[in-house]
Amino acid sequence: MTRTTLLSVAVIGVMGLGLAGLAAGPVRADEGMWTFDSLPTAKIKADYGLDLDAKWLDRVRLSAVRLQGCSAAFVSPNGLILTNNHCIQGCTSALSSGGKTDYVKNGFRSVLREDELKCPGATAEVLLTITDVSEKVRTATAGLNGQAFVKARDGAMSASETEICGNKAGLRCQTISFYRGGQYKVYQFQRYTDVRLVFAPEFDIAFFGGDPDNFNFPRFDLDAAFLRAYQDGKPVQTKSYLPWSVQAPKAGDPTFVVGNPGSTERLLTVSQLETQRDLTIPVSQLQRSEYRGRLIEMARASPEARRIAGDALFGVENGFKVFYGRQLTLNDRAFMEAKRQEEADLKARVAADPALAAKIGDPWAEIAKAQRVIAENYLPFRQLETEAGGGSRLYGWARTLVRSAQQRAKPPEARSADYSDSRLAQTERALMAPNPVELDIEVLRLEHWLLKTREYLTVDHPGTRSLLGKESPEGLAASLVKTSSLADPAVRKALWDGGLEAVSASDDPMVQFVIATEGQGKALREMWETEVSGPVDRAAERIAQARFAVYGSSVYPDATFSLRLSYGKVAGWTYGGRTIDAFTTLGGTFDRATGSAPFALPQSWLDARSRLKSETVFNFVTTNDIIGGNSGSPVIDARGQVIGTAFDGNIHSLGGAYGYDGRLNRTVVVSTAAITEALRTVYGLEALARELTGK
Amino acid sequence: MTRTTLLSVAVIGVMGLGLAGLAAGPVRADEGMWTFDSLPTAKIKADYGLDLDAKWLDRVRLSAVRLQGCSAAFVSPNGLILTNNHCIQGCTSALSSGGKTDYVKNGFRSVLREDELKCPGATAEVLLTITDVSEKVRTATAGLNGQAFVKARDGAMSASETEICGNKAGLRCQTISFYRGGQYKVYQFQRYTDVRLVFAPEFDIAFFGGDPDNFNFPRFDLDAAFLRAYQDGKPVQTKSYLPWSVQAPKAGDPTFVVGNPGSTERLLTVSQLETQRDLTIPVSQLQRSEYRGRLIEMARASPEARRIAGDALFGVENGFKVFYGRQLTLNDRAFMEAKRQEEADLKARVAADPALAAKIGDPWAEIAKAQRVIAENYLPFRQLETEAGGGSRLYGWARTLVRSAQQRAKPPEARSADYSDSRLAQTERALMAPNPVELDIEVLRLEHWLLKTREYLTVDHPGTRSLLGKESPEGLAASLVKTSSLADPAVRKALWDGGLEAVSASDDPMVQFVIATEGQGKALREMWETEVSGPVDRAAERIAQARFAVYGSSVYPDATFSLRLSYGKVAGWTYGGRTIDAFTTLGGTFDRATGSAPFALPQSWLDARSRLKSETVFNFVTTNDIIGGNSGSPVIDARGQVIGTAFDGNIHSLGGAYGYDGRLNRTVVVSTAAITEALRTVYGLEALARELTGK
Repeated sequence: MTRTTLLSVAVIGVMGLGLAGLAAGPVRADEGMWTFDSLPTAKIKADYGLDLDAKWLDRVRLSAVRLQGCSAAFVSPNGLILTNNHCIQGCTSALSSGGKTDYVKNGFRSVLREDELKCPGATAEVLLTITDVSEKVRTATAGLNGQAFVKARDGAMSASETEICGNKAGLRCQTISFYRGGQYKVYQFQRYTDVRLVFAPEFDIAFFGGDPDNFNFPRFDLDAAFLRAYQDGKPVQTKSYLPWSVQAPKAGDPTFVVGNPGSTERLLTVSQLETQRDLTIPVSQLQRSEYRGRLIEMARASPEARRIAGDALFGVENGFKVFYGRQLTLNDRAFMEAKRQEEADLKARVAADPALAAKIGDPWAEIAKAQRVIAENYLPFRQLETEAGGGSRLYGWARTLVRSAQQRAKPPEARSADYSDSRLAQTERALMAPNPVELDIEVLRLEHWLLKTREYLTVDHPGTRSLLGKESPEGLAASLVKTSSLADPAVRKALWDGGLEAVSASDDPMVQFVIATEGQGKALREMWETEVSGPVDRAAERIAQARFAVYGSSVYPDATFSLRLSYGKVAGWTYGGRTIDAFTTLGGTFDRATGSAPFALPQSWLDARSRLKSETVFNFVTTNDIIGGNSGSPVIDARGQVIGTAFDGNIHSLGGAYGYDGRLNRTVVVSTAAITEALRTVYGLEALARELTGK
Repeated sequence: MTRTTLLSVAVIGVMGLGLAGLAAGPVRADEGMWTFDSLPTAKIKADYGLDLDAKWLDRVRLSAVRLQGCSAAFVSPNGLILTNNHCIQGCTSALSSGGKTDYVKNGFRSVLREDELKCPGATAEVLLTITDVSEKVRTATAGLNGQAFVKARDGAMSASETEICGNKAGLRCQTISFYRGGQYKVYQFQRYTDVRLVFAPEFDIAFFGGDPDNFNFPRFDLDAAFLRAYQDGKPVQTKSYLPWSVQAPKAGDPTFVVGNPGSTERLLTVSQLETQRDLTIPVSQLQRSEYRGRLIEMARASPEARRIAGDALFGVENGFKVFYGRQLTLNDRAFMEAKRQEEADLKARVAADPALAAKIGDPWAEIAKAQRVIAENYLPFRQLETEAGGGSRLYGWARTLVRSAQQRAKPPEARSADYSDSRLAQTERALMAPNPVELDIEVLRLEHWLLKTREYLTVDHPGTRSLLGKESPEGLAASLVKTSSLADPAVRKALWDGGLEAVSASDDPMVQFVIATEGQGKALREMWETEVSGPVDRAAERIAQARFAVYGSSVYPDATFSLRLSYGKVAGWTYGGRTIDAFTTLGGTFDRATGSAPFALPQSWLDARSRLKSETVFNFVTTNDIIGGNSGSPVIDARGQVIGTAFDGNIHSLGGAYGYDGRLNRTVVVSTAAITEALRTVYGLEALARELTGK
């Protein structure tokens, strides 16, 4: 392995990786989620006239914080962290106990350090080094396939992590694969496990506009929150942090977003995109929409029903909009045509290089062939395996117990990769977590799943018959939920500990139901792995290798929930004849408020209305290339100051899963200007404002 | 005009219309909904070895009966009519008053003629003559466009109808346009207005399998019913009727279906199909699915809620499946490729004929241009105009009152075509019909519409702002329904009679809401007529003319809810690796029953189980080309005997809206064999069985 410091790699950027003779990558303006060891500094200089030197880059990298599923940044020398409010909702929820201490609804304000509350289980990670271990992995896996390949690869990765992080407390290593196996890098993090809540606004202003405004702009959300990293009971003294700007940017100003985009699928082939467009997204959206309607109606029954169904509804509506945006992009003929051109271009370049062609073969044809298998088998696979149980926790626990018991009864070398000892340890922990179960939602999920299975597969499909027999979906769902004891963690623990013997002998109706029916799903999964995901994964690796061979690091890898930098500028956009301005103001929030959810403002804002500087920039949009996972990412100006925190993308940015479109994709940001004004004028948190601004 | 008798035309068939030199039409085996003055008798002879002579055809035509929205046939010399149970549900519903006399739920059995109950408002029509008036219409409309064209055309049609039908009682004339204005024919009918209910089975056996089995096969439905036509208080003595077969057919037997398919869109261009595939069907399906979920959940509240929501749900689920089937076909790459080929072929043939090319121009390009206007404007047009009100009756009445009042305030020549005096008379009748209003459903429909408008157009669209202002969708829907008096027909009558003055002065909140908001929908409709439907209709006519010029009557016209004959054979099909057999048996019904809706059998069937001949063919499938409107069509064997009544199509037949696929499209039929067995063994209706069989 070659251990390289980030300093030297950052300076090398695109130039030093032997790219002479490589094709110019097909990367458009402002596009890309760039790794810190391969930044397009030359392009940024050319497009924006900015020299991002090593000092700038190191400070930004060491200020960036990775939370669980989100991004953040240090914004003071005392370990203060800026992120989104929705990123810390797990924390505020866990700390709440209803009534006055409903920190989700009412927000949270601390005045003294002592008031700051530890978020249970929260971690914050800072990227220290990146080490290339690609050769090590390639050597260990040479000539291997299937499960043998997977185990050798995992072993080599594990060994590298141990070598780099050792057993040092506070360090964490993670091996990340880039370019679908084109590269393997060990990321070494500083890891803080004492992360405390400092400030959260009320839900009604953090998510003002709710689902109607979600993924849209103009927007009026104070989706910001503050945490603080502690070590040994004291705030971490952070040498690297982002200085705070009280000014909002102007249209056209360059902006940098540093965070952890979760995943993108920009290397999907045209045939794969067509499968999503024509089959997998439409089916899930139709079923999701019906489920959504059921939740909406269920919520009307009582305040308690509204609370329970409302929680579930939030996720369903957000998911609906994500896939709506993706579908919009996949239906865009110009977008698909551009993808066809890209694909044709890469294929032509491979064909023009006989050695490369011999190595790559025709992975596009292999993937297209797999799409035909998908077309024939997707509905049963979805209904009987991937969506089995419809999200019911009781079903999920039962299936985990049954399948884990079956696997644990085998010697470790005979098990599937998902059932290694380390994976089983994680599975057991998740199984025992005391997650409360809402019975009405459980019945709804099972019933909906059974109804849709019968509808989409038809009554006569063996899968339907196997699930229902002479039962009705309504009757079966209700009786399984009513009679199962799996909601009790002690019951689950006993079944886990008792292994296959206990599970097989269990008279729990849900366990029995799963035992009787999960086999068909398992058979479909095995077929799928053999005929679809196996061949597709291997073909996709060769496409990634072809792309890497042709374009090198001039193309960035798909997102991997690890640190990336994206560059762009503040700008609105035009679509369907309407031009959207890049900015909103605090004053505009009151114009939009109606007094009814989700356009009802918290009392604190209504009280502060006359004192707020109404022309303060509230939210703004930029051309930065981001995706889910970037929530909470600091938005940084050319001077390296933080000017906002990214909290959403517009509807077009959802197509960013497949490809970046600079005309339309936008990052949505809440400005530090508005956060400052709110802290001072709405919440009276002078000390916090002073810690940020130095005044 | 040329008045031609059907005798001579039927014999002429394809041969005599001067088709020498025309291209062989692109019509596949068993395809087509053929008019009686242009039957492909030569092809039928070639494919099936059958000579359909004038006697056969006349008897079949004069036995065929058109009901409102359905098809049927005379099956005895005493005016007995066979149709589907679902075709007479309006009648059984209107005659019921709950409890024992719920004829929908419990069915209806008459023993003597005196027991037969008149269906309110039901009519039965028999096709007597077809007269070609194409030249007359062309002369009257020469050189005219837009509204002037429409009025001249309607005038010429009206004059022809008066000439042919005069004022003779019992006759009705209707001018039908074929090939999108390629031909105009006056159809003259014998019209019966005293139609009485003779027999209907219970809902649970007529629609056994409910939504899960709807549009699917295997199927086990007794979707059959009997009516009787009366004149002057006595059963009509029908000289032409179809002899009844107690035998079921065998696989491969030729079958003929005679009925009134409602409408097809087989001349849509590829660009139009893409618009449906990518935009209009998906949007409606997503919104429909959410609405469906709300109804399902609403139905759980109480038995009364189940009844009310259940009625609405039936239509929604049927509609969902229709569009699901259409989407399936539009997503079929082979289907779309065949359409592209057809289109390319027709364009090439037009281009090869300079005179024709000069006349036709490039309607495909004009239609493609209109698709781009659709893409930009569809969502607002849908939400603010075509779907305005979401199906709420109160909203619909208000909008009818407002717009009719506006139009009636203008002199007749200045009104839109929809507001001619004769149209207004129909409108007024419909407005005054005492349709009961279910308030919960009204609120749901309005609320759903407002929520989806806000979601799909966004909060910032002027249309959304105009509808909602500071109201919430939930609040506005509830208050409009609660405070409007339009459910009272007397209130509606007063507003109609009071004209524009009364309407403008009305303080009914729904009327005020419509006055305040319908203008934007109206503006969109005008834009749509100018830039979309106007140009598309004119271009479509030229495509139809091109097609007619190239292929003549060797291609059949799109369905027009007028009498057609289709030919085929009894056959199952194979799809996705599964082969479906062509037949089900009475015995199979009991295997499928579960005791829970929709697989619960009526008591009469459970009681008769041991006495029924279980191997009797119950339902079967054929390759006949049918579409909605053909429900109730007699299925006729080579000898001219009726062997069943068509009541459904399989899921693939829904793509028949766009094109026939003989590998997959199937008609679903309930056999006369099963009907006979049921009448005798389940219902003990010997007299009725004897009237049919003669024994």
